[in-house]
Amino acid sequence: MPVPGPGYSITVRVEAPPSASAAGDLAAAVGRAGGVITAFDVVESHTDRIVVDLTANTYSDAHARDITTALEELPGVVVRKVSDRTFLIHLGGKIEVSPKVALRNRDDLSRAYTPGVARICQAIAENPYDARRLTIKRNTVAVVTDGSAVLGLGNIGPAAALPVMEGKAALFKKFAGVDAWPVCLDTQDTEEIIRTVKLIAPVYGGINLEDIAAPRCFEIEARLREALDIPVFHDDQHGTAIVVVAALRNALRVVGKQLSDCKVVVCGAGAAGSAIIRLLLQKKPADVLAVDVHGIVHPGRDGMDPNLAWVAANTNNEGLTGRLTDALVGADVFIGVSAPNLFGADAVATMAPDPVVFALANPDPEIDPLEAQRHAAVVATGRSDYPNQINNVLAFPGVFRGLLDAQARGITDEMLLAAADAIADVVDGDRVNASFIVPSVFDSAVAPAVAEAVSRAAAPVGARPA
Amino acid sequence: MPVPGPGYSITVRVEAPPSASAAGDLAAAVGRAGGVITAFDVVESHTDRIVVDLTANTYSDAHARDITTALEELPGVVVRKVSDRTFLIHLGGKIEVSPKVALRNRDDLSRAYTPGVARICQAIAENPYDARRLTIKRNTVAVVTDGSAVLGLGNIGPAAALPVMEGKAALFKKFAGVDAWPVCLDTQDTEEIIRTVKLIAPVYGGINLEDIAAPRCFEIEARLREALDIPVFHDDQHGTAIVVVAALRNALRVVGKQLSDCKVVVCGAGAAGSAIIRLLLQKKPADVLAVDVHGIVHPGRDGMDPNLAWVAANTNNEGLTGRLTDALVGADVFIGVSAPNLFGADAVATMAPDPVVFALANPDPEIDPLEAQRHAAVVATGRSDYPNQINNVLAFPGVFRGLLDAQARGITDEMLLAAADAIADVVDGDRVNASFIVPSVFDSAVAPAVAEAVSRAAAPVGARPA
Repeated sequence: MPVPGPGYSITVRVEAPPSASAAGDLAAAVGRAGGVITAFDVVESHTDRIVVDLTANTYSDAHARDITTALEELPGVVVRKVSDRTFLIHLGGKIEVSPKVALRNRDDLSRAYTPGVARICQAIAENPYDARRLTIKRNTVAVVTDGSAVLGLGNIGPAAALPVMEGKAALFKKFAGVDAWPVCLDTQDTEEIIRTVKLIAPVYGGINLEDIAAPRCFEIEARLREALDIPVFHDDQHGTAIVVVAALRNALRVVGKQLSDCKVVVCGAGAAGSAIIRLLLQKKPADVLAVDVHGIVHPGRDGMDPNLAWVAANTNNEGLTGRLTDALVGADVFIGVSAPNLFGADAVATMAPDPVVFALANPDPEIDPLEAQRHAAVVATGRSDYPNQINNVLAFPGVFRGLLDAQARGITDEMLLAAADAIADVVDGDRVNASFIVPSVFDSAVAPAVAEAVSRAAAPVGARPA
Repeated sequence: MPVPGPGYSITVRVEAPPSASAAGDLAAAVGRAGGVITAFDVVESHTDRIVVDLTANTYSDAHARDITTALEELPGVVVRKVSDRTFLIHLGGKIEVSPKVALRNRDDLSRAYTPGVARICQAIAENPYDARRLTIKRNTVAVVTDGSAVLGLGNIGPAAALPVMEGKAALFKKFAGVDAWPVCLDTQDTEEIIRTVKLIAPVYGGINLEDIAAPRCFEIEARLREALDIPVFHDDQHGTAIVVVAALRNALRVVGKQLSDCKVVVCGAGAAGSAIIRLLLQKKPADVLAVDVHGIVHPGRDGMDPNLAWVAANTNNEGLTGRLTDALVGADVFIGVSAPNLFGADAVATMAPDPVVFALANPDPEIDPLEAQRHAAVVATGRSDYPNQINNVLAFPGVFRGLLDAQARGITDEMLLAAADAIADVVDGDRVNASFIVPSVFDSAVAPAVAEAVSRAAAPVGARPA
């Protein structure tokens, strides 16, 4: 059953009779149609009618139309206008570029632009490292996509991906003071993407790759890390991996297990799944089983790409084959970044005692979280309407804040693990419980803690002296 | 003689004796060394000493050091610190990226980011034109350079060019509310520049090419105009041409001549010179003579590139040959976008009666403006310390404001001429005189007037219906 949410919030302006019961009738009609009223504002009142703005959460466009129809069918009610609040806030885009310097008069202009700016250019031409001091490079990250794997929408292209990249840029500033800029590339050719990012790099202190399909994303990231002297971070991989590792550390505290004793099943071996496995392996679990649409990944499987071959070679100690349900038997931890509704409570019952289930497929998890809770000790999802939301927003702003602060020239697994520990540590010992293994995305302590941890981990390999 | 200016402004913090004459001594020392004091602030006062921040305009780094030395040589004076105000305002860059939407709580996040944003993405995927309504594309311009011809500094590369592009972006917002973003490309290969701009284009509603060397800039602009459905405008060409044509219209009002009767000499046949000639020819002057380092451009000359061959074919009605001084004899108008100190007052004396001289080479004009004034009726330069500054800031913000407002898919000479007329018209009939042929860059009427004119001219060829 879909849940009405603010992502599908509408405001309906209606004319209704001025009777004592009108307000109640309107609210009841919305309720019967399954909408959740969040605001009721009378905007006009006349002797013969009132005009009301009814704001309600719905769960789809069709649901929003059903609610409008239910209102129209009330006697004496006329729907004047339906506004979609999500579309309204996107009009004209979600970010802007503003001057940080005053440009009030001729003197300001002479310093910020010609002729004064020429001296800044000359200083950088003489000492290129000054670009990190005297330009936006110091605080600016490119959010680069080819639009090939956007949210759950798939390959929708660069223009349709832009609203996500703008949202990401807004979050970067809001949570960590990072200036981020959308780079939506009109190509899905690996070589062209690599070349283009190299060519635009002078402006940026870091590259956040976003929503680029696997396996292309692996090569693009690896080659750019090799080529550039700024950190390159594919958020769908490492952002997710950081938050999963953080959440898992606290989940295991709740159930009183050590990761070194745990068998972990990771379902989905694309960008996110592979990165989770790679980061988890740094922490030496007892075993990891990777599972994809073809079943448990094992070294004997045909037709594996280099990424999957690496996974096969580094997981599955016992060379198991079989399906997801086979993998789950006796497992301590399930981490899903794959597809909706893959298994039920029965399968959870076959796991080890006090199992941990992270069902992160979005919007519909691998198992309904309420089902999972029947046998699992800790459940997490990617959704905002259940406890324990695994959300990259906990990681990427602080990670890049730390990288920029350290003027890091690259990124290492140590930095990713430091970020994970910092997130986990924000939920201090007294507060950890089965419904609270990660902090709220609005906890303002998270990004600074992550930034400091990453910056500290970056220091040994980070800044080049000026 | 160089003139001290705010582009070389320093603040010197000095300790001085608390005597009655100390302030006067400090000011006198700066004055003797040629500095111009713009602020005198006592920051501490003790019985045995005062601490003063002395702010002064200088004309070079060496001059700033001379002034500091002059202060140090005063009895009892200690220089604590010298701050360069131009460098200070550049620390950390001059622009920032900010959210335009609130991100205070979960509901905000659900609309601006996941899950709500997915509906915006889908809308654009279904109707690509919605990108101009629901994303930053509506108001955003790329400022693209390869760093090959930056100000008067030449080929300093993309990183050293960034401070100029940031300044330009700041001016775009300040004067016309346009969001502009620096794109500094780490290549100077024509094909790579063209390809990269095409690939990044989905985010932008217009492309401002900047400081790209001739003749490469001509091909890049022409091919991008052909390939893209957004306007492409090389400011060094067309921005300059617009302001020159505007200024010339008012200069001819001052001297009471018609352009159709005028012989115009354009010195410099690079990006700016060629564009000035092309735009001027639309207004049918009696004749144009183009002059470059090899002398008067004429059809018989060897080794001309396609741009210069076009200039040769479309100017010089009488097939003149010779040098700049030959071209000037009997000319009504001189427009220089070339090199410093090419001629003197004697050559101006050979021009037609009441000649107009635009000596726009920066920072040092083709002829000293005071020299030119001995015989010229109207003189303009590119400098801010003489009347009649020909400054692109008068054009580019309003031009792009108009293009974006019209959702223009391209740009035409009619739009450029409309912009020029709009700038000229801001100086209304009563106010035009030999020292006031263009409005101040801080005249807030300019950008809206230009925007409206461009938008009107764009309407017939502009927006595609949604």
